[in-house]
Amino acid sequence: MVVLGIIAEYNPFHNGHKYHIDKSVELVKPDYVIAVMSGHFTQRGEAAIIDKWERAEMALRNGVDLVIELPAAYSSQTAELFAFGGIQLLNHTGVVTHVSFGSEVGSIQPLTSIARILANEPPQFKELLKKHLGQGLSFPQARYRAVIEYTSKLGCNIFSESQWEKIIYSSNSILALEYLRTLYKTNSNIQPVTIPRTGPSYSSLDINGKIASATAIRNELVNRMGWNTIARTMPPSSFEILKNAIKSGKGPVTNHSLEQLFLGIIRRAPLQEIKNWMDVDEGLENRIKQCAQDATNLEEFLTLTKTKRYVYTRIQRILIHGLLGLTKEKIIRFRNAGGPQYLRILGFSKKATPLLKQLKQSARVPILTKSAHYYKTLKNPVAREMFMIDVLATNLYSLGIPEEQFKKGNRDFTEKIRII
Amino acid sequence: MVVLGIIAEYNPFHNGHKYHIDKSVELVKPDYVIAVMSGHFTQRGEAAIIDKWERAEMALRNGVDLVIELPAAYSSQTAELFAFGGIQLLNHTGVVTHVSFGSEVGSIQPLTSIARILANEPPQFKELLKKHLGQGLSFPQARYRAVIEYTSKLGCNIFSESQWEKIIYSSNSILALEYLRTLYKTNSNIQPVTIPRTGPSYSSLDINGKIASATAIRNELVNRMGWNTIARTMPPSSFEILKNAIKSGKGPVTNHSLEQLFLGIIRRAPLQEIKNWMDVDEGLENRIKQCAQDATNLEEFLTLTKTKRYVYTRIQRILIHGLLGLTKEKIIRFRNAGGPQYLRILGFSKKATPLLKQLKQSARVPILTKSAHYYKTLKNPVAREMFMIDVLATNLYSLGIPEEQFKKGNRDFTEKIRII
Repeated sequence: MVVLGIIAEYNPFHNGHKYHIDKSVELVKPDYVIAVMSGHFTQRGEAAIIDKWERAEMALRNGVDLVIELPAAYSSQTAELFAFGGIQLLNHTGVVTHVSFGSEVGSIQPLTSIARILANEPPQFKELLKKHLGQGLSFPQARYRAVIEYTSKLGCNIFSESQWEKIIYSSNSILALEYLRTLYKTNSNIQPVTIPRTGPSYSSLDINGKIASATAIRNELVNRMGWNTIARTMPPSSFEILKNAIKSGKGPVTNHSLEQLFLGIIRRAPLQEIKNWMDVDEGLENRIKQCAQDATNLEEFLTLTKTKRYVYTRIQRILIHGLLGLTKEKIIRFRNAGGPQYLRILGFSKKATPLLKQLKQSARVPILTKSAHYYKTLKNPVAREMFMIDVLATNLYSLGIPEEQFKKGNRDFTEKIRII
Repeated sequence: MVVLGIIAEYNPFHNGHKYHIDKSVELVKPDYVIAVMSGHFTQRGEAAIIDKWERAEMALRNGVDLVIELPAAYSSQTAELFAFGGIQLLNHTGVVTHVSFGSEVGSIQPLTSIARILANEPPQFKELLKKHLGQGLSFPQARYRAVIEYTSKLGCNIFSESQWEKIIYSSNSILALEYLRTLYKTNSNIQPVTIPRTGPSYSSLDINGKIASATAIRNELVNRMGWNTIARTMPPSSFEILKNAIKSGKGPVTNHSLEQLFLGIIRRAPLQEIKNWMDVDEGLENRIKQCAQDATNLEEFLTLTKTKRYVYTRIQRILIHGLLGLTKEKIIRFRNAGGPQYLRILGFSKKATPLLKQLKQSARVPILTKSAHYYKTLKNPVAREMFMIDVLATNLYSLGIPEEQFKKGNRDFTEKIRII
């Protein structure tokens, strides 16, 4: 059985996602496609525009056979932890044979070469890394600077300086490298492939073509509601789901929708608590606390708090960590326990029945289909703790949904798994 | 120097409050009037309709010479603790000679007789109390039942059954008894007087006359904005302050304004945390947690959570305790430290200069006029801790203010003391 794995957010599912699936299927020719998808909070530290069940259905109607939720403990993390969570989930299935991700580079070989250096950390490379960190570069910058010099010394320059820049500053390639590094570190048998990205960049707001970034689509949805413009950028079935969800008041949800809660939690939290949140470096808690007092809204808080070193996205992630109580201690404990502790299924296609049968035999962690049975299904206390963070994420996310009926809590125990 | 003390909320200041001040002044003929006033959260567990500085000014323009803030640790408590906080603040001034409160009873003698029994707890009374509690009555009910039987046995029936009913079920008389009890327990030299209440009852929504309850005025303000109706019920200066505050977006603030924060905090709090909040009896934390999941809004949460035993007001108070982190442990610690630890001045009239001079010599706790100097002024760590709860109360209250500019935090350090 050839099974293709994809790690995604589908926030919302658009033509670029469809292109990536189609091209990957052309290349790998899998029997089934599995997507590991973020739940209610995404890698950039943002509330998803509509809920995870709607987004899972979008994927199922466009070539994905099975959607597994990336636990909230991993979905709003740095590229390294996000990739670790995603790849480990694919490893844990025991059925995935290939993983496909988009990148600006377009061919897998140069990426694998770099990823091996990052995974193995040869002594010379480590020294270079140390040197650049000592010169005050941020970690990703220092690391790639070290890669350039290390490969240059070996006489195997892989990229030109301008290509390097692309890798250093493009989210997709950074993620791609982290996926590969995790594959090596976990001695995975999964074969990586990459599809060159098409259309505007990840964060571009250009929404004129058929392919637009998810950021541009969300921006259009929140600020203009230009349905015709949005319709052009999404597969029809996906567009219908989005439109119906918004019309019924299930969205759009953004971090702004949770503004009072975010600011209230920070104003209310003792400094010592903020200090323990994931990604809060020494001293940053003071800045966060102060800016939450000075700001009159969330956007102002983010603008006041961010610096060259603590970028906007990082502060947003910290917001999510604070919201969900994701402390450094918890994240380390989860990592030591082997990462994601269960395969929580959000939906599947009917034709995937043989895949599910196979999955039941090969999965290395429990498969969670009925959330109400989570206590029986998850024997390990760490798994239960991790799952309760997913439940909390939904319960707090729900408070940001426009229509009152969906603000009800514990939807993780009442929403049905989507079967297409 | 004859100084009259009043404990109040002025939420908002209306004709009934004015009547109470005028009648009290007629009776006591004081040189000055001091009001101890709740800050941003009130005894019924509600966010005040406008901020404490505006409400202090209302009082100053209508016969009060000095407004002292009742710390947030005491302002949203049961009658017993609220009264303890208020009376202790008056005791701490060292200048107050009289205290006046409204009651349905109208004359001080019968109230003092009962309050002495409650303060001294003679053995026979204690036995009767125990008996009624054992029969499943709530504490206030059992206590007053015990008072009836105890006084009857002594052959001194003070009230008829219907008069008892009035005392048992009227907030004002319950508070009056607690004020008196605290006066005895603290061996206070302050003389109590009472003014019979006039107009509709405390919780009546009748707003047709010149005297209406603060509840009725708030209701009119939030649901209908009938300015002409409201104008009839308030002194003109007080009405102007209210109207200007509302027009500039400083209000109206209600618990509904903080809905996302209240529900979010409960959904996010571990059961063990909720269990430690003040007024959460054994097992109630489970009910609170469950109802916060089931409810889609705050009103629904309160309706779902309340029972015969855990009344609406108590659940509202618990909301405030949770918001401000007021645990049982803190409240006990504050009580053991002697109650309110400072006199925080919100405003005064220019003619009160001699009073302030006297106050500086006689006060038993530090006087806080410049909040920015709180760390220097308050040497005692318990005092600092108590004051930081007031600051937190303002910072979270502010998030519920309609106009964005007032959502800024730390207004306790930037708002000027009101001088009239």
